[in-house]
Amino acid sequence: MSTNPQLDEILDGLRKIQGIHGTALVEKYGLVSGQALPAWIDAESLGAMVNLIVKASARATRELAQGEFKSAMIDNEKGRLIFTALGSKILIIVATPNVAMGILQVKLQTAAQAIYQLGIT
Amino acid sequence: MSTNPQLDEILDGLRKIQGIHGTALVEKYGLVSGQALPAWIDAESLGAMVNLIVKASARATRELAQGEFKSAMIDNEKGRLIFTALGSKILIIVATPNVAMGILQVKLQTAAQAIYQLGIT
Repeated sequence: MSTNPQLDEILDGLRKIQGIHGTALVEKYGLVSGQALPAWIDAESLGAMVNLIVKASARATRELAQGEFKSAMIDNEKGRLIFTALGSKILIIVATPNVAMGILQVKLQTAAQAIYQLGIT
Repeated sequence: MSTNPQLDEILDGLRKIQGIHGTALVEKYGLVSGQALPAWIDAESLGAMVNLIVKASARATRELAQGEFKSAMIDNEKGRLIFTALGSKILIIVATPNVAMGILQVKLQTAAQAIYQLGIT
């Protein structure tokens, strides 16, 4: 939950997609701006993870001249993590390993656009 | 380059795929076991990046009960980084943003199998 009901609605919508455990909007330094997470996922730890990914990407930007971070996907044995840059924030999705990526990409695009229009990123 | 000519051959083969800048086999703590990288990519920095990704994933394993790290992909504005777990090591590929993933996935699978058979992972 956040102090922004429109953001909560968008995040809740993403969470309802099959194969999605939860989602959160995180500032690059790890602070959580909004979330729709199940009780077993700690928002603060998730924020710290996002911070690590952004750090790794910032290093890539410097060393490999790869430009701005756009998105990332981490596949673990029992889950998939999807990170999407939205202005100065990151949308993270915690999913099952076999989540249907085609459907998710479309809904993610729509949600990203809607969040962008809230003017909070 | 490494002290293993068979590993060098496999990594060189991957590097020849269109859209691939270079590739390296890295120990989880960042030490580079072998590489086929262009002069502008510093192997040590690449090793450090791999270490950051593995750290982020280890945190996911702990906090989200996601099990072992399998693979990751980071999309930046001007490049794509692809990480694949091979036993205790990580194969990293530095690619252009528009690299053809279908072809790459097939060749990556073959290379991973060949590296695995060298008994060094």
